[in-house]
Amino acid sequence: MKPDSRIVVIGGGTGVFTVLTGLRSRFKNLAAIVTMADDGGSTGALREDFGVLPPGDIRRALIALSKTDNKILSALFNYRFKEGAGLHGHSFGNLMLTALERITGSFESAIREAARILRVEGSVIPVTLKQTKLFAELENGAIIKGESNIDVPKHDGQLRIKRVWLRPAAAINPNARKALLVADLIIIGPGDLYTSIIPNLLVSGIKTTLQKTKAKIIYLINLMTKFGETNGFAASDFVKEIEKYLGRGVVDYVVVSNRRPAVTRLKKYKKEKAEWVRFDKKNFGPRPKLIPENLIRSSGFIRHAPEKIAELIARLM
Amino acid sequence: MKPDSRIVVIGGGTGVFTVLTGLRSRFKNLAAIVTMADDGGSTGALREDFGVLPPGDIRRALIALSKTDNKILSALFNYRFKEGAGLHGHSFGNLMLTALERITGSFESAIREAARILRVEGSVIPVTLKQTKLFAELENGAIIKGESNIDVPKHDGQLRIKRVWLRPAAAINPNARKALLVADLIIIGPGDLYTSIIPNLLVSGIKTTLQKTKAKIIYLINLMTKFGETNGFAASDFVKEIEKYLGRGVVDYVVVSNRRPAVTRLKKYKKEKAEWVRFDKKNFGPRPKLIPENLIRSSGFIRHAPEKIAELIARLM
Repeated sequence: MKPDSRIVVIGGGTGVFTVLTGLRSRFKNLAAIVTMADDGGSTGALREDFGVLPPGDIRRALIALSKTDNKILSALFNYRFKEGAGLHGHSFGNLMLTALERITGSFESAIREAARILRVEGSVIPVTLKQTKLFAELENGAIIKGESNIDVPKHDGQLRIKRVWLRPAAAINPNARKALLVADLIIIGPGDLYTSIIPNLLVSGIKTTLQKTKAKIIYLINLMTKFGETNGFAASDFVKEIEKYLGRGVVDYVVVSNRRPAVTRLKKYKKEKAEWVRFDKKNFGPRPKLIPENLIRSSGFIRHAPEKIAELIARLM
Repeated sequence: MKPDSRIVVIGGGTGVFTVLTGLRSRFKNLAAIVTMADDGGSTGALREDFGVLPPGDIRRALIALSKTDNKILSALFNYRFKEGAGLHGHSFGNLMLTALERITGSFESAIREAARILRVEGSVIPVTLKQTKLFAELENGAIIKGESNIDVPKHDGQLRIKRVWLRPAAAINPNARKALLVADLIIIGPGDLYTSIIPNLLVSGIKTTLQKTKAKIIYLINLMTKFGETNGFAASDFVKEIEKYLGRGVVDYVVVSNRRPAVTRLKKYKKEKAEWVRFDKKNFGPRPKLIPENLIRSSGFIRHAPEKIAELIARLM
């Protein structure tokens, strides 16, 4: 990819943040399309009380694309109140997006104004502008209502998720469609499969747009499984699930981590029952094209290293 | 006064906002020293839950001195949440100052950072950095605890206030002292006499600093009385109260409104039992020098017109 290639990242949570943080140093035409399924914590409370679209994932993407040299301003946007009965747990950035929604009258204008204050380069686009809720059916037939109940599982986390859906159905944000159609490259993930990534693909119009776009589509497979979502998943399981919702032949490349992290680093994930996503090469066919790569940060959390992602993307094509 | 004269405004609430709004178009070296006695509403809740100094009066002064061309940003800073059990009634600007206090570790740094974000020209200085509470004794001997209980009176509003004090005693903020000592002009008021103006004068070190400074000191008498604070006050009563706390000979000029507003405009104040402050010329002596002037806005609320204040100050000396 060239520095002026148009790159769109689809996802939510820390995954989008990581990818954008890496790309912003090498690419200038970046857009993030983020899930509107979050309904937990500060975001959930604001959805309930104000009827706004969920600000949390938008907030993280804005921070990632902010070019402000004011470090306090970004710390402020990320600040979470720790005191006060009604304030405790609220993210300041979420409150800012909510207040801006009230002042400007629309969620997209609120994002635009927050972007202006934070000197964001690139665009942050809600995948849909419709209020909707995420549902999941487990392999035992149980139905789970709400993203946060899947994300922080109250169910037996060993059970597989059979399918997820949005209710009411939500149509694609026209600005998301535009961004996907003019893109040169679209990056899906990494991120929580059923709560951050697939909720984007469930929005009606996304699948057809991804089928139609001339952009290359690349899927970054997670490094670690998540209890309650992807317990026991190998790399190929992630791709199967993505293709279940997008259809086969839509994703052009999948990037898989081929280097098992050190045991000492993996040990820290025991408590949350997360494991390294095994690279089961034999279960991959010729398409999508497989890119085995070591993208893991050299220390700390087992997450993608932003600069390694950027390097890989720069090398592509 | 010249455009580069150093002018300090002492007060709180909408009075400081009005004066600064007027002065900022003609003068460039402005500072506001604001009361730290407020304990009602959003500010009171944040003091209680976070132990921060009261942000409300700081917020209004910052807005008045903001040179940002981003109208949404100033609307945001003034925005008050109307929904959400724990958010309802909170001012966004107050939350921002509170979060910045937590991030930077001090209230003065928080003000500095907010000023940077809002592109404030001039300085906004808390009169003290110590947590303190305002008390009042009424003429019948009753003691009232807390600024908000005096400001929104639960007592018989016809009773005069015999004296007010701070507990614990609070020492002057060194930055307030500095600003007062280098000033060319100090403007006290207008504003609620016992809840916005005198709480500044009660801070230990203020009186001696005002006695010591070479700056001319001017007191702007309120246009309207306030039930529960200055019920039945004539213009000279305001001056007597200020001199009770500052001593005689400290204030050089008093500005009094010499034009009674139209009956139709006064009628709107019946409900809150507020009346025009009579200009009782006969009760004024030769000092402080009396400046009778018509500074009232030409329509709407009976308040000082910012541009008329600025014009008067420019004419002085």
